[in-house]
Amino acid sequence: MDSVVSIIMGSTSDFPVMEEAAKFLNEMRIPFEINALSAHRVPEMVSDFAKSAHNRGVKVIIAGAGGAAHLPGVIAAFTPVPVIGVPIKSSNSIDGWDSVLSILQMPAGIPVATVALDGARNAAILAAQILATGDSKLYDKLVKFKNDLAKKIAEANDELAKVEYEFKVKK
Amino acid sequence: MDSVVSIIMGSTSDFPVMEEAAKFLNEMRIPFEINALSAHRVPEMVSDFAKSAHNRGVKVIIAGAGGAAHLPGVIAAFTPVPVIGVPIKSSNSIDGWDSVLSILQMPAGIPVATVALDGARNAAILAAQILATGDSKLYDKLVKFKNDLAKKIAEANDELAKVEYEFKVKK
Amino acid sequence: MDSVVSIIMGSTSDFPVMEEAAKFLNEMRIPFEINALSAHRVPEMVSDFAKSAHNRGVKVIIAGAGGAAHLPGVIAAFTPVPVIGVPIKSSNSIDGWDSVLSILQMPAGIPVATVALDGARNAAILAAQILATGDSKLYDKLVKFKNDLAKKIAEANDELAKVEYEFKVKK
Amino acid sequence: MDSVVSIIMGSTSDFPVMEEAAKFLNEMRIPFEINALSAHRVPEMVSDFAKSAHNRGVKVIIAGAGGAAHLPGVIAAFTPVPVIGVPIKSSNSIDGWDSVLSILQMPAGIPVATVALDGARNAAILAAQILATGDSKLYDKLVKFKNDLAKKIAEANDELAKVEYEFKVKK
Amino acid sequence: MDSVVSIIMGSTSDFPVMEEAAKFLNEMRIPFEINALSAHRVPEMVSDFAKSAHNRGVKVIIAGAGGAAHLPGVIAAFTPVPVIGVPIKSSNSIDGWDSVLSILQMPAGIPVATVALDGARNAAILAAQILATGDSKLYDKLVKFKNDLAKKIAEANDELAKVEYEFKVKK
Amino acid sequence: MDSVVSIIMGSTSDFPVMEEAAKFLNEMRIPFEINALSAHRVPEMVSDFAKSAHNRGVKVIIAGAGGAAHLPGVIAAFTPVPVIGVPIKSSNSIDGWDSVLSILQMPAGIPVATVALDGARNAAILAAQILATGDSKLYDKLVKFKNDLAKKIAEANDELAKVEYEFKVKK
Amino acid sequence: MDSVVSIIMGSTSDFPVMEEAAKFLNEMRIPFEINALSAHRVPEMVSDFAKSAHNRGVKVIIAGAGGAAHLPGVIAAFTPVPVIGVPIKSSNSIDGWDSVLSILQMPAGIPVATVALDGARNAAILAAQILATGDSKLYDKLVKFKNDLAKKIAEANDELAKVEYEFKVKK
Amino acid sequence: MDSVVSIIMGSTSDFPVMEEAAKFLNEMRIPFEINALSAHRVPEMVSDFAKSAHNRGVKVIIAGAGGAAHLPGVIAAFTPVPVIGVPIKSSNSIDGWDSVLSILQMPAGIPVATVALDGARNAAILAAQILATGDSKLYDKLVKFKNDLAKKIAEANDELAKVEYEFKVKK
Repeated sequence: MDSVVSIIMGSTSDFPVMEEAAKFLNEMRIPFEINALSAHRVPEMVSDFAKSAHNRGVKVIIAGAGGAAHLPGVIAAFTPVPVIGVPIKSSNSIDGWDSVLSILQMPAGIPVATVALDGARNAAILAAQILATGDSKLYDKLVKFKNDLAKKIAEANDELAKVEYEFKVKK
Repeated sequence: MDSVVSIIMGSTSDFPVMEEAAKFLNEMRIPFEINALSAHRVPEMVSDFAKSAHNRGVKVIIAGAGGAAHLPGVIAAFTPVPVIGVPIKSSNSIDGWDSVLSILQMPAGIPVATVALDGARNAAILAAQILATGDSKLYDKLVKFKNDLAKKIAEANDELAKVEYEFKVKK
Repeated sequence: MDSVVSIIMGSTSDFPVMEEAAKFLNEMRIPFEINALSAHRVPEMVSDFAKSAHNRGVKVIIAGAGGAAHLPGVIAAFTPVPVIGVPIKSSNSIDGWDSVLSILQMPAGIPVATVALDGARNAAILAAQILATGDSKLYDKLVKFKNDLAKKIAEANDELAKVEYEFKVKK
Repeated sequence: MDSVVSIIMGSTSDFPVMEEAAKFLNEMRIPFEINALSAHRVPEMVSDFAKSAHNRGVKVIIAGAGGAAHLPGVIAAFTPVPVIGVPIKSSNSIDGWDSVLSILQMPAGIPVATVALDGARNAAILAAQILATGDSKLYDKLVKFKNDLAKKIAEANDELAKVEYEFKVKK
Repeated sequence: MDSVVSIIMGSTSDFPVMEEAAKFLNEMRIPFEINALSAHRVPEMVSDFAKSAHNRGVKVIIAGAGGAAHLPGVIAAFTPVPVIGVPIKSSNSIDGWDSVLSILQMPAGIPVATVALDGARNAAILAAQILATGDSKLYDKLVKFKNDLAKKIAEANDELAKVEYEFKVKK
Repeated sequence: MDSVVSIIMGSTSDFPVMEEAAKFLNEMRIPFEINALSAHRVPEMVSDFAKSAHNRGVKVIIAGAGGAAHLPGVIAAFTPVPVIGVPIKSSNSIDGWDSVLSILQMPAGIPVATVALDGARNAAILAAQILATGDSKLYDKLVKFKNDLAKKIAEANDELAKVEYEFKVKK
Repeated sequence: MDSVVSIIMGSTSDFPVMEEAAKFLNEMRIPFEINALSAHRVPEMVSDFAKSAHNRGVKVIIAGAGGAAHLPGVIAAFTPVPVIGVPIKSSNSIDGWDSVLSILQMPAGIPVATVALDGARNAAILAAQILATGDSKLYDKLVKFKNDLAKKIAEANDELAKVEYEFKVKK
Repeated sequence: MDSVVSIIMGSTSDFPVMEEAAKFLNEMRIPFEINALSAHRVPEMVSDFAKSAHNRGVKVIIAGAGGAAHLPGVIAAFTPVPVIGVPIKSSNSIDGWDSVLSILQMPAGIPVATVALDGARNAAILAAQILATGDSKLYDKLVKFKNDLAKKIAEANDELAKVEYEFKVKK
């Protein structure tokens, strides 16, 4: 079994955020791999990783990092495989602004698909949506996922209907 | 010929930014369509657009908007087709921060692949990278595109070598 | 009894903030309803909600949301009923800036009446002020509310007069 | 004829922004008045203005100001008439952040309905929406206004359809 | 005994911050008064307070407030007595930026002498410095205060000299 | 004639902003001096300047600087004479934030009375207000200055009354 | 033994951050000294410190400070010895922005080598790198340090390989 | 002649900013080289450049970049030669914040010596200061440079003495 999605993060301390991506891919039964490789501490392992990704069968890369978060951009420099960037509000971050801006503001030619701060689960959903452009079964799974999400919201709303105030109108 | 990529923007005033996306798709010979539909002024045209996208053969949507930029997120609400968001620094924007944050910070379940402020060209490159996950010819084109980009940088660097100062060392 | 004010929030997790609005409306004996419907997860329930509001007798809508907070703007897109937006500093927010900007910076034609971050109580007071433009009894109640607020401040100030320092001048 | 809406701004230099509010009210045939009174330079004229508003028949106040923009909040302190605040990016402003925050972040008890930076036209639309809660003819006018807005967007989109690229798909 | 300095804050909840000002004035034996009066909830008490300050012998006013912090500016509108503004990072503040900007960015003609966020002690020191421009004994006290401050720093530095590392050089 | 107020700026390039302070002092007939001395380029001239100020009769110092604006704080370190800081949005500034924060956020013990970005005129008014705490004639002049300011506002407002719209109510 | 690196901080309360610099220098066996001297409270001790540094054999200065952090810049004003600035997120800081900007944004002529917020360890590494420009043994130590860092990352990554999910691909 | 300092920038469009560094090194007669190599477009040229720097005799690297400015950090990843980072406010930057944060906020282990936005001249001065730690002649040159800078300030101040106002005190 080849990894179709590759999850990579700048440090093992990012794992509590990034495991949300792993969980979603697992739910969707999409084969994946996980690595923690710093763009600044092991730059050559990162470039080897990026350059070999396509040949190893990887179709989407999810890269999370905090602070001056160069990892997603550095990987995107080495491969046309789409890179999804997850800014992480790590302890050495200025309220997350540094991670967001160093991932988002890539120069012309080298895009990174950036998601919300600490948005690892959304990164995995986006990865699945990308794979679904060429896989109609996965597309149907995602339609179902969206419907289930809607159902949960509707149910939660029904729960809220039970809160009582004198002037709250009954449905 | 079906549109494979759909470019949409919040207002025709966004066209000077968004046409960079059109140009790149044209260069790559990827069929596309363009619309300017405001999430706030014609919400039902936007939801019809989003809901019909998949069946019309659209595989990736590129959505640009400025200010309280809801368009990319509203489209993503209606379809699992991947949505790439382009924050635009329009005249009614607070230095672009409003567009960036209202596109990037989507809630769990509904990702938008955000690119840099006014980064329409990168949005189109990302769209091509997504399509290339299922199209090896397009993948090869993107490898070539990356190589050409690198060549131009190397040539520009050679130009720079001609700048002279007494203590500048000749290569 | 028809709901005169409709409170809506993006997620049930916003309820601890938004219940301050419910409490104030209850105090003022203004009939209201509460819903938790995400603009991104159940977009069609939201548009049905917005389009039917006027006919159901709703005169003011209070909409709270966090992160890329599209809910108030999306509702305002579908109805000329005035929409009061409450930015919420949710856990996935960048210090509240994302919610504030995605609610406040609406494009020309579709205003949202934005109040302070987590300012649900003020949203309800504003709703009452809006209703009072056509209801002189409610206007008088709000005059009384303002006077009571002033009295509490004056009393608190009297409490402060009891703090003692050698060089603090007695009143 | 009594003024139903009162437009007030901190300085006559704010008029180029604030006249957009006057124009919209004029279009909608809503009687209004305009004043330029600084909360800091003529505080007593401002408090007299605010305290007399309700008795003069004013139902909504639109107040615009830049920098440390206290005018909307100071007026709201004196009257339960709803106050719509327009932050203005004046020359002495720090990119508009000062005006936005000093209008938006009002304390509990004293709301100001804040609109987008330089959003005077939206302030007038919001004022009309507020008046329409008790005036069904005005409500119908606003429905028509929304429809006209939508029509213009649809027409602009048709214009955009004429832009040609080799790989742009014809509608 | 007349109050020479008047401390005023927007709410009694600001007292834990503002009491640092009271303590310093007490140390310096400068007679003072304290009030908690909201510019928005009791505007007329605030204007009476400001207008009467000079005649009651008050020479400097220290005004602290959080959020949309209008109190210092509103007081400065009514009196040429110098007003020192203390921005407070209250619970309803956006990281203190709102308080800082709504106090600092006053329009031409009406200055507020702003000190650091939560800088009530510095406000009192500044008040003493202002009074010392006409009181040479107080000036001498402040020279002594500055010297004592310096001595404490020198002593703390000596303490630090005791921390040991193998390669730390002995003084 | 001794200088009562001393204006100092970090660079002669700050003079176009700082001359507003000189003009106001001149109008008020307050003797003053002007210097341009950088805290970083001529630190000893700055410390000599600060240490000698009191003995030269200077009662208030107005210090303007841009970027990492250390000048006001460095002067305040050497003298208990009150220092008014003017943040300047110079060409090497990040939108003025750097100047504002490096002047405002002084540590406990060493206040700087900060005014608005580029607010040199307000700095001079504040200086006059400080001097007026011990000079009743100057106090009366400032009362008159405030009244004149109010008169100008009232006149400007009368001008505005002439703007005509069909639905603008005549006063 | 002379100090080769001098660590200085604005207050002993900065020591928990700054001791990371001491520890690294100790590991690298580089002789150093530590002082806590405030630029604002003991300005003359700071200028004496700075002016004597070169003659005492100091080759690099590491200066940490919070809030309006003038210490690094003030030292750089007095000596051409390179100064590394460490912005500190102290309790009186606005999320660290004030420290970062008042250290980073130095005017032309007087650079400060700024490192990340609370980045004292990086400051010491940078000091060692500077010393290594003239010391090949130290350079080799730093090469080894970089390799050890890389080894730790590779080992941590191997640990991560043990996390199991059904669809995680085995290496 | 070997290059002692290496100037590198992300794009030739950064040259107008970065040539200030070249000019200063030329004045100081320090041999240097210039390259424009993008970390994202020619990553392998950048890593070759960084890895070979030390052996080519380079003692300090000055790296400038805008937007998501990874170049300085990527170079620092490959070599213990000190890297000075120059954030550049390029056209695709969000007011320079992105460049500043992506250069400054490097993770522990890999420092970049960051200077002010567009501060290329200061980067070169810092490079000279670093080289001067092992070169007493260069140190003396820098002392002279500092003295000349001071002289220019004193002369400019003398110019300012000629500005006349009635109440400006003659020196």
